[in-house]
Amino acid sequence: MDLNNDGTGGLGARAMAASHDLWQDAMDHAVAVARESGKVIQDSLQDQAQTGVQTKSSSVDLVTETDQRVEQLIIQSVKSKFPTHRFIGEESVAGGDACVLTSDPTWIIDPIDGTTNYVHRFPFVGVCIGFAVNKQVEWGVVYSAIEDKMYTARKGQGAFCNGRPLQVSAQTDVHKALVATEFGSNRDPQVVDKIFSSLRKVLTLPVHGIRGFGSAALNMCSVASSAVDLYFETGIHIWDVAAASVIVTEAGGVLLDTGGGAVDLMSRRIVAANNKTIATKIINELDVFSPKRDDDPTPDPAE
Amino acid sequence: MDLNNDGTGGLGARAMAASHDLWQDAMDHAVAVARESGKVIQDSLQDQAQTGVQTKSSSVDLVTETDQRVEQLIIQSVKSKFPTHRFIGEESVAGGDACVLTSDPTWIIDPIDGTTNYVHRFPFVGVCIGFAVNKQVEWGVVYSAIEDKMYTARKGQGAFCNGRPLQVSAQTDVHKALVATEFGSNRDPQVVDKIFSSLRKVLTLPVHGIRGFGSAALNMCSVASSAVDLYFETGIHIWDVAAASVIVTEAGGVLLDTGGGAVDLMSRRIVAANNKTIATKIINELDVFSPKRDDDPTPDPAE
Repeated sequence: MDLNNDGTGGLGARAMAASHDLWQDAMDHAVAVARESGKVIQDSLQDQAQTGVQTKSSSVDLVTETDQRVEQLIIQSVKSKFPTHRFIGEESVAGGDACVLTSDPTWIIDPIDGTTNYVHRFPFVGVCIGFAVNKQVEWGVVYSAIEDKMYTARKGQGAFCNGRPLQVSAQTDVHKALVATEFGSNRDPQVVDKIFSSLRKVLTLPVHGIRGFGSAALNMCSVASSAVDLYFETGIHIWDVAAASVIVTEAGGVLLDTGGGAVDLMSRRIVAANNKTIATKIINELDVFSPKRDDDPTPDPAE
Repeated sequence: MDLNNDGTGGLGARAMAASHDLWQDAMDHAVAVARESGKVIQDSLQDQAQTGVQTKSSSVDLVTETDQRVEQLIIQSVKSKFPTHRFIGEESVAGGDACVLTSDPTWIIDPIDGTTNYVHRFPFVGVCIGFAVNKQVEWGVVYSAIEDKMYTARKGQGAFCNGRPLQVSAQTDVHKALVATEFGSNRDPQVVDKIFSSLRKVLTLPVHGIRGFGSAALNMCSVASSAVDLYFETGIHIWDVAAASVIVTEAGGVLLDTGGGAVDLMSRRIVAANNKTIATKIINELDVFSPKRDDDPTPDPAE
């Protein structure tokens, strides 16, 4: 009897199982550090008086000291435990780091998805931590810190909110769909034209209504929770959606490009839907456009 | 020494004080029945599978059995305690009752503000109970049943959420404002034109962003809580906004018509803002239009 024969195929499988366990360790660490980050965010809201608000690409693209502090907290904490892993972090990229997804284990971090909400204390902000290996997202953690909702999903193992399983809606009639989207922070008239044109066509299909939490990640978690049937947006970044992407698919949902093809997390375009029927009907109404990709290192004349 | 001289001016004042106490009794009753209604709503979400959804003015103007059941629960409960009081209830008016505000004590009720949210389990619905005497709203109760947030205000006595005092934001720079609005349930192209035109002008002022809970009452409570700086909408009804109106003003906010004049709760137009500076800047961007008034008994060709 071969005690090592666990039915998974020998050494290669055991090595894979070991790396899987390591990814589970990483995910457990992410949940802990997301909760710790949430505490920092909640504490900062007790005495924050919109101090330390700066702008990035435009007067409405905001960043705060708390964004930067939380990202450093997460990165330092992860580095001490997983020193060989790589990072893509919203604030690190804003600070000049390259936004490159290699095959190495990579933590993809948005310390506060919904910074405008945070500045206004509009109570929906997500700490987002996704983890990719071989350019595939293995697990994702989104902590809605003010609501105290911890969304988690690992590939092949389902999606959860505070431990409760999530399932997308079963709706297939687009006229009964509730759709989430955002206006984003780009006020370029040509971009606004396309956003409004798409929105109007979707609204007047008609659908039941349009909603938006002001956070891409929390909109995607709403798809996973069946509170909305679909979310679409152009202009988001990989750190806004990587963690939530696996939460959507593990809840039974689908991810597509706004043009209808396969989703590309660097393309800044996403449709997250309960199913392909609803996704296709909405995609037919969208004006597709292409912001500068996240992995394009050339300066963007629009930003 | 006149023991009856309580410093308020004798019999007339005492009668007024007595009626004030009666209004407090009514308000206490409203808080209790709103909480009871919230329990009915929460329980119904446990086993509701979008059964009993009907439409009203259009395919996206929804009503459910729970709306009707909760309104009857509130009205019957109030009638047994305050048999001479009058009512304006969303579902009663939909059922053919006149929508008339007299000088008599009148309960203005929306059993579920945010019915579309309710149908989708998008977790923001408000049980709204306002109380008017001499056509003035004396107090308002809005219970966000899924969040378990009880918003209350009585004229001259401040606004509260779960007992915590509310205060509107101090923001006076419209470019730093977060604004709430809704698309509503009217899909008439001319109405949609005006909604989109106003929205675009507001967004590109620019402001920090646009949000919307899918509930007029909860948007107004967000103004009172300083989570947003202003809410505007055309197409709402008196039962959507009566209760929340006093919550806004008691939190230090202002109410205006979308045309800039005094608010008229029957006109279906409202701006609720933290202050007049922000309100004026936003009102300058709005395309004003006039839906059929709530107190106009003639049939609406558009509905």
